[in-house]
Amino acid sequence: MEDKVLLAHGSGGRLSHELIEKHCMPYLGNTILNRMDDSAALELNGRIAFTTDSYVIKPLFFPGGDIGRLSVCGTVNDLATSGAMARYLSLSLIIEEGFSVFDLERIMSSVSETAKEAGVLVITGDTKVVDHGSADGLFINTSGIGIIPEGIDISGGNAKEGDRVIVTGTIGDHGIAVMAQREGLKFSIPVESDCAPLNRLVSEILDVSSDVRCMRDPTRGGLATTLNELAAQSGVGIQIYEDKIPVKDAVRGMCEILGFDPLYIANEGKMIIIAAPEETDRIIACLHRNKYGKDAAVIGEVTSQHKGRVALRTRLGSSRIVDMLTGDLLPRIC
Amino acid sequence: MEDKVLLAHGSGGRLSHELIEKHCMPYLGNTILNRMDDSAALELNGRIAFTTDSYVIKPLFFPGGDIGRLSVCGTVNDLATSGAMARYLSLSLIIEEGFSVFDLERIMSSVSETAKEAGVLVITGDTKVVDHGSADGLFINTSGIGIIPEGIDISGGNAKEGDRVIVTGTIGDHGIAVMAQREGLKFSIPVESDCAPLNRLVSEILDVSSDVRCMRDPTRGGLATTLNELAAQSGVGIQIYEDKIPVKDAVRGMCEILGFDPLYIANEGKMIIIAAPEETDRIIACLHRNKYGKDAAVIGEVTSQHKGRVALRTRLGSSRIVDMLTGDLLPRIC
Repeated sequence: MEDKVLLAHGSGGRLSHELIEKHCMPYLGNTILNRMDDSAALELNGRIAFTTDSYVIKPLFFPGGDIGRLSVCGTVNDLATSGAMARYLSLSLIIEEGFSVFDLERIMSSVSETAKEAGVLVITGDTKVVDHGSADGLFINTSGIGIIPEGIDISGGNAKEGDRVIVTGTIGDHGIAVMAQREGLKFSIPVESDCAPLNRLVSEILDVSSDVRCMRDPTRGGLATTLNELAAQSGVGIQIYEDKIPVKDAVRGMCEILGFDPLYIANEGKMIIIAAPEETDRIIACLHRNKYGKDAAVIGEVTSQHKGRVALRTRLGSSRIVDMLTGDLLPRIC
Repeated sequence: MEDKVLLAHGSGGRLSHELIEKHCMPYLGNTILNRMDDSAALELNGRIAFTTDSYVIKPLFFPGGDIGRLSVCGTVNDLATSGAMARYLSLSLIIEEGFSVFDLERIMSSVSETAKEAGVLVITGDTKVVDHGSADGLFINTSGIGIIPEGIDISGGNAKEGDRVIVTGTIGDHGIAVMAQREGLKFSIPVESDCAPLNRLVSEILDVSSDVRCMRDPTRGGLATTLNELAAQSGVGIQIYEDKIPVKDAVRGMCEILGFDPLYIANEGKMIIIAAPEETDRIIACLHRNKYGKDAAVIGEVTSQHKGRVALRTRLGSSRIVDMLTGDLLPRIC
């Protein structure tokens, strides 16, 4: 039974301590976490950003990532949306009784590697174990604290008429990779999740441009839903052009076969950036220098027409309103 | 189907927005949360504490509280252990498909009331929905940020020989109340969970005493496990006296019948305080003035003997080592 998580590992007693010390701390330990206090103490000064996300993705391992990498990237990227540099994460596990300790370690190792890449520390945590059948393997919550550099004011409510809409790369990779893994579908060219921490990329953009209005990562609900959120929050219209939106051939092909629209497929390593038009060239040049931004493109602009809505000019020249996702395309995609 | 949470409520699209706007925001809304950005921006200066906990308690409603009240109190109290005044919480829900929207609202209402009592704001959140059978109703994660007042240095590693050990009230109430509800047991005198936010009580103590060394809330694993943690972390021995430990008659009776030891039963509204001996009277007097501290008592002291261990002098005058909880007494107690 040593290689399975037991209900008693969630008791808060000796076995809980063992689970954490033997299987988590070797990957996550740092001077703050090692104190093992119920809360972590640290010094902070200035404007900070605070965010939370629970991750329930199925399956836990997928091409291009796993729930560990995802749970670091998702929260780092949510912080990046307000221009904040992620610094500290909490990590809370809900584990189903019987879960493989080997898989737990693989996931902790992935959390550790991704946290290193993003330059963040896991400084506080929690572990709960529920009885077999009361959860599906493993759920992870990460919450994060980031520092907002001085002078930065980025919010979904800041878009203005004439601003340009940029996406930092191809859309739909994460959703299609996860779905293919889940359904056992094979591609001739394999599609991998784009799951990546974007805080360094965002930092580079903020270094070259002082007029970024909004940033948001198009995760659940995809590009279409996120653009709708931004249009509603800013009280503006958004016009996008189908032929400018980067989509991998394999993703487009899979979408056509399955009747999906890539505009609604989840991404985990992309950012939508809305910025003043005169900033566009500089931002795009900056993005193209970063491996996570090499396919970045301007895909549209902010207009005073159709306020609160997103319009798409199709390849064929026709125009249609692109609504938020209604219903659910791919449950448990993150 | 309107009164049940659907899988599509977790899609990130229109239904997710509706679920949050109709059933959560009326209870939780505040100027920061209302911005609905992916991360909340705020100003912080000085030393802060950061903590996280996931709540998987079963059943969701129990005498004296529910998962909503618990998920605020647990995190507020974890912050209080480092002397921090909780300010901001995140709230992340993992909901099983089919969960009652009415129950969700009851729980959000309870989160709201408890947050008001504790003086904290929920400023960022997340909602995921998993398919029926992949979770057990509702799991909640709250993470919290608190402000550590200047000059405060409280850690589990600070206990010194000669310090006194205080508990702020009767032990075992939460665990016994939840177990009784779960198993359908009836008491002649009903036992309620002690689930309560202790940040104001801790603040009052820090106002009257400058020499509090350690605080920790004896949740999972109970008083015995928490004292063991403190003994190990500080490298000291802890001596406690059975006749000084406050236990309600009903809790003691139920423990005797079921063969439980109240020392290992979870609490959700109690704090262990270790302080310099000359501070004891002032702290106890202060505790007795607060409704959450009225049964507070000095239950023992820190010694240089049996380092890293906890010894109990029984009512009969014999002595025994009290270990951490081994195995699991009551799974899913928080």
